[in-house]
Amino acid sequence: MDCVNIGLIGFGNIGTGVVNAINQNRELLRERAGVPVSITRIADTDTRRKRDADYDPAIVTSDAAALLDDPSISIIIELVGGLEPARTFVEKALRNKKHVVTANKAMLATFGADLIELARENGVSLLFEASVGGGIPIIRALQTGISANNVQRVHGILNGTCNYILTHMSQDGRAFETVLAEAQAHGFAEPDPTYDVEGYDTAHKTAILASLAFQQDIRFADVFVEGISRLKPVDLENARRLGYVVKLLGIAKRDAGDDRVEARVHPTLIPTTSLLANVNGVFNAVMVEGDLVGQTLFYGRGAGQNPTASAILSDVMAIAASLSGCTRTESDDRLRIPVGTKSLKPIAELETSYYLRVSVTDKPGAMAVISSILAKHNISINSMLQTGERRTDQAADVIIVTHHAREADVQAALGEIARTDVAHDQPFVLRVEDEL
Amino acid sequence: MDCVNIGLIGFGNIGTGVVNAINQNRELLRERAGVPVSITRIADTDTRRKRDADYDPAIVTSDAAALLDDPSISIIIELVGGLEPARTFVEKALRNKKHVVTANKAMLATFGADLIELARENGVSLLFEASVGGGIPIIRALQTGISANNVQRVHGILNGTCNYILTHMSQDGRAFETVLAEAQAHGFAEPDPTYDVEGYDTAHKTAILASLAFQQDIRFADVFVEGISRLKPVDLENARRLGYVVKLLGIAKRDAGDDRVEARVHPTLIPTTSLLANVNGVFNAVMVEGDLVGQTLFYGRGAGQNPTASAILSDVMAIAASLSGCTRTESDDRLRIPVGTKSLKPIAELETSYYLRVSVTDKPGAMAVISSILAKHNISINSMLQTGERRTDQAADVIIVTHHAREADVQAALGEIARTDVAHDQPFVLRVEDEL
Repeated sequence: MDCVNIGLIGFGNIGTGVVNAINQNRELLRERAGVPVSITRIADTDTRRKRDADYDPAIVTSDAAALLDDPSISIIIELVGGLEPARTFVEKALRNKKHVVTANKAMLATFGADLIELARENGVSLLFEASVGGGIPIIRALQTGISANNVQRVHGILNGTCNYILTHMSQDGRAFETVLAEAQAHGFAEPDPTYDVEGYDTAHKTAILASLAFQQDIRFADVFVEGISRLKPVDLENARRLGYVVKLLGIAKRDAGDDRVEARVHPTLIPTTSLLANVNGVFNAVMVEGDLVGQTLFYGRGAGQNPTASAILSDVMAIAASLSGCTRTESDDRLRIPVGTKSLKPIAELETSYYLRVSVTDKPGAMAVISSILAKHNISINSMLQTGERRTDQAADVIIVTHHAREADVQAALGEIARTDVAHDQPFVLRVEDEL
Repeated sequence: MDCVNIGLIGFGNIGTGVVNAINQNRELLRERAGVPVSITRIADTDTRRKRDADYDPAIVTSDAAALLDDPSISIIIELVGGLEPARTFVEKALRNKKHVVTANKAMLATFGADLIELARENGVSLLFEASVGGGIPIIRALQTGISANNVQRVHGILNGTCNYILTHMSQDGRAFETVLAEAQAHGFAEPDPTYDVEGYDTAHKTAILASLAFQQDIRFADVFVEGISRLKPVDLENARRLGYVVKLLGIAKRDAGDDRVEARVHPTLIPTTSLLANVNGVFNAVMVEGDLVGQTLFYGRGAGQNPTASAILSDVMAIAASLSGCTRTESDDRLRIPVGTKSLKPIAELETSYYLRVSVTDKPGAMAVISSILAKHNISINSMLQTGERRTDQAADVIIVTHHAREADVQAALGEIARTDVAHDQPFVLRVEDEL
């Protein structure tokens, strides 16, 4: 093959970044892939707007089928995002024996195993390095770099918006809403931040990582999700006093005993000494622990035009090198995700430590009521913090960090506490990961 | 191919780890490689000693040729180490069309490009993930994960022994010799620690990383090397006061202007806020900066039986998967190191900041003499620290951190200072990397 032609579907921010990156490193890409790679057609619903890149406007069409049916195109880069029409485009591309490179984590976390199966049936690759961790080559690390390991657990800071907000809430003691507004002003958060701050983005990425790490077909719907919007500055401050930092983590673990997988996303207290605790601002990091390699960490920019283009082009080059015969490429076949196979551990069975913030009516005996309810549910207290800062409404916050307890017991205890007359409002709970 | 047979040459600590890892994860390896992999012959000069692993003693031979000429063996794992006879074994294996997996950084940093060329001529792969960073998949990250990037710089903590010693010298204020003895007692340092503490191990690894990052044939002899044995606790303490940590770094940078590469290994002052500053004990980390991806960091255990086995087996599986037809593998061809090509920047032309420790005779005018010599050589002072702790011999340490200066100027100035009557002994110099 003299030249590898690429069709790009979705000409937004990331698509523009890919066009620019190919222009910038054209010679290097040609050398390493063994063949020139170029984008010969672009499809987008908006064909008019001039993007901030050097390209021939004549190659832009509103008709994705023009690319998907073009026999001269061997790779489709899908950057439409979302479930539809992205999935339809990708399916058509695979059926037309085109390799697909995508950054679409929502699609992968929903239909990933089906699409990988479809790719295999058609003898082509579906690569998705850009779907998790931006420029960090974490997908390849799981698929090839540590492929000899039984992965035990994965902890990831996977959403730059949340990490930016938590970093600034923690550093400056400001409220979630204030920092969110600032992040929106800086372009680090979307006008509608729900997808990011409620943890859905992290859950999509966690489903992908869990599937690859444990070779099970784990999808978005299998992941327990809790976002960061209910966190108060006081929680970050309490965490700090107790030796923790709060991060929104995507967590996937395999139970050593019964092989069941827990996949969950929630704001998490982690020790300040952990490397993950020092991942700040818009950076992402993924810690992977395997039975041979031990603890590894992969760190970098989790979003943005250039880092995402870096990941997309690493996939493009793997395919192009294979097509050019210059080299063989790693493929997605090896670590295929078995369709339909999974063994999940429900969140109710989670056992970990918990951070509890209980607003108690300021009267004698309140603590006795709370501690006896906790004891009744087999929850023992590791440390307690009563800040003494009385709230104007005659209530005081009591902070409790428990020893390992069962999620179901904790939820039952909190429900019972909420129904007593000493609790001022619904207790707030955060989960702790101590061994990081 | 029904089964991939491996010949292991070198049955020491790491070889034993590989045998154990294959036994431990046999089923997982078979699934992911698409074919069973097994070690069918082992060569070592010591055929008698029973290793701490489950293996058939009958497969152990003292004759490496028995493996190299065995047509049923398709992969040779070379764990002999050192230059010879390792190189002869590897050359013979490649000529016999066997794929080679090696952890031998000394051999690669000396003959790497030649051996890779020989592998290509014979249509086989030479893979070496285990040669740098133990279990960290840094070779694959450079070869595939960030392959679309023009790499700008690489900074690595690549030697666990040195990092252990520096971490403990820094935490406890103890002398190099004391901590080294302790590390030897714990098995973290060799009885003859020269190879590690004088920076040669790090230099071998730096040559490999620089070659891959910049696609130039950079060898051990091209790397400037300075070890950690001359560091005193007072230097680590001074660094701390100035906001730095001292790490032995392997550094490779490409000059944006003229494309020349600097490759150097020396104890380096880095800001305490840097992620690398928080890599402690026997852990390794490599920071890679590319034009698209920005700053990335790869962290993990840099040595040990299991992490090294993890890296070796990731190479074995890549080859096995390719042989089984289950998938195609990434190969070393893509990022081949051009034989003979290099453009180096000599250490004398280095421009960076410097930490100077000058022991001055405690008399008036000493500082004036030193500062005028520095000024004459175009070296300007950024900060100065005179600790006031007078030494018993009527001398006091003056610590100077310079602005960016040229290495040749700094060395000339230090020589001149040493020849004055105010300098008490030879000034000590460390280099600073501020932008980390």
